[in-house]
Amino acid sequence: MSKGNLLSVREDVQVLDATLRDGGLCNDFFFTDEFVRDLYNNNLEAGVDYMEFGYKASKKMFSPEKFGKWKFCDDEDIRSIVGDNDTEMKIAVMADVGRCDYKRDIRPREESPVDMVRIATYIDTIRHATAMIDHCHKMGYETAINIMAVSKNRTEDIRAALDIFGQTPVDVIYLVDSYGSFYPEQIRDFTQLYLEYAEKYDKKLGIHSHNNQSLAFANTIDALKEGVSFLDCTVMGMGRGAGNCRSELLLGFLKNPKYMVEPIFDQIQNHMVKLKQDGVRWGFDIPYILTGQRNSHPRTAIEFIKQGRTDYNNLRLELLDME
Amino acid sequence: MSKGNLLSVREDVQVLDATLRDGGLCNDFFFTDEFVRDLYNNNLEAGVDYMEFGYKASKKMFSPEKFGKWKFCDDEDIRSIVGDNDTEMKIAVMADVGRCDYKRDIRPREESPVDMVRIATYIDTIRHATAMIDHCHKMGYETAINIMAVSKNRTEDIRAALDIFGQTPVDVIYLVDSYGSFYPEQIRDFTQLYLEYAEKYDKKLGIHSHNNQSLAFANTIDALKEGVSFLDCTVMGMGRGAGNCRSELLLGFLKNPKYMVEPIFDQIQNHMVKLKQDGVRWGFDIPYILTGQRNSHPRTAIEFIKQGRTDYNNLRLELLDME
Repeated sequence: MSKGNLLSVREDVQVLDATLRDGGLCNDFFFTDEFVRDLYNNNLEAGVDYMEFGYKASKKMFSPEKFGKWKFCDDEDIRSIVGDNDTEMKIAVMADVGRCDYKRDIRPREESPVDMVRIATYIDTIRHATAMIDHCHKMGYETAINIMAVSKNRTEDIRAALDIFGQTPVDVIYLVDSYGSFYPEQIRDFTQLYLEYAEKYDKKLGIHSHNNQSLAFANTIDALKEGVSFLDCTVMGMGRGAGNCRSELLLGFLKNPKYMVEPIFDQIQNHMVKLKQDGVRWGFDIPYILTGQRNSHPRTAIEFIKQGRTDYNNLRLELLDME
Repeated sequence: MSKGNLLSVREDVQVLDATLRDGGLCNDFFFTDEFVRDLYNNNLEAGVDYMEFGYKASKKMFSPEKFGKWKFCDDEDIRSIVGDNDTEMKIAVMADVGRCDYKRDIRPREESPVDMVRIATYIDTIRHATAMIDHCHKMGYETAINIMAVSKNRTEDIRAALDIFGQTPVDVIYLVDSYGSFYPEQIRDFTQLYLEYAEKYDKKLGIHSHNNQSLAFANTIDALKEGVSFLDCTVMGMGRGAGNCRSELLLGFLKNPKYMVEPIFDQIQNHMVKLKQDGVRWGFDIPYILTGQRNSHPRTAIEFIKQGRTDYNNLRLELLDME
């Protein structure tokens, strides 16, 4: 079932940088404008296809004083960085079911620099998600649906969800490994499952991985090999907890000459190294192995690391107690 | 061609801890006796099948003043830790072609606590390696052959080497990803290639991976799935450069109830955390991505990190210049 070999160029591949969005979960979205502008320019030079600027969160639910502007992604804030974005790279934002006032905040595409809205949902709220897809589609946007935490769901329910989303106008369906618990052979199997519906309904597939078990890159390129097109990555893997698939690994792997890894290293040496030095925390660490192996939300591991603890076997017992 | 699924117990699986040997490359083999004794006891409790104590290096070539005792692995030094090793866990040592005075230093097995000698060779010295295999076999040891740096070799030469080793009394043939340059799909292909000869000559296969591209664990479990039996790992991935497959990931993954991950976390919290604090360096870092992607020896990246440099794009150019 392999799609291509290690030297193939697959024209369907789309690289999506989610550094501001998933990375923003590590610093409450307080990125400097210089960081964001350089990231935009570096992604552009690197050949990245989509750049996700952050969340489209409701300002009624979340205080703009407690979060940086990329939690809200006002059109004018994006415009202050990208102007009219007269480039090949598209702009994405994420809208969470239950955290977004989408009817008010997601306005017609012709008034916005945004090209794609990615809708994130758990499986029990998919009817809210389909309503959001319909709205965003009517507003003229490309749409993607990220069904989160499927590692906790039954296969029958995932099939039902895929069948429902297949019948919406959504463009891309994402396989999301929220807890970094999937092994490559599971990712290959899941990709085949998702492909059944993608082919039936003529949808594209995406993969969003987490690095809890040090498998984010492996899972991404295995999903690619099986037929996934949209590949999420973040610079230096910046993202919640153990973080995501690293842009520098992914872009160094892809063979299409449009992709360049140098600008990503520029972003790292000019910005990411400093973020780390300033104490912003993300990336693979031992506690995430434990939550990943147990298919648990990483919050327990994040807290454990924050407290400077290294009594890993106690964490292991605490996680068992939580089940 | 998959051998088993995620819940299978494969009785052929053998976990080999190489912490002292590959990890010793990071601290010139200066481990305290307490470290080694605890590692032995923790490996034993964890169900590890083989523990590699270090190298069998020639004292004529390497000064015992410059290196800790596990570079030489004298029988009496091993005995001071394990006594007669009256356990299920076997003891291994590594002997490098060209760095070992094997006729003098590798004595009959009945006089030694060692069970297995692993012989490491590059492809051009395989005739020396077969002589060492013959010697060790005559001395009564189990033997394994680690053909290093095959990512630099032509497939025809690898086939020729496998055919030669197939005709020796060696027990295990190792697929070694010396530069951490192999992607999972290559590991799966290579495993199939090695399996051709393993099945023809009734040999077992092993995998020794490096984490330069954050793929050591993924490559190990994919090789396992394809039919490899001997799985190398090190506690906290301790090993040269980007290190190896982490014991805590591997033992947490394997389903055989004989394997326990808790003792590995004990070793980490009681010893490894301190090693790191004391400045011993190993593990995944950005410069290894660059050497891994280019299929280069990690020494350039190790030096870059040692100097505290973060100008990754200069390293990238320096690596290009070296080709």
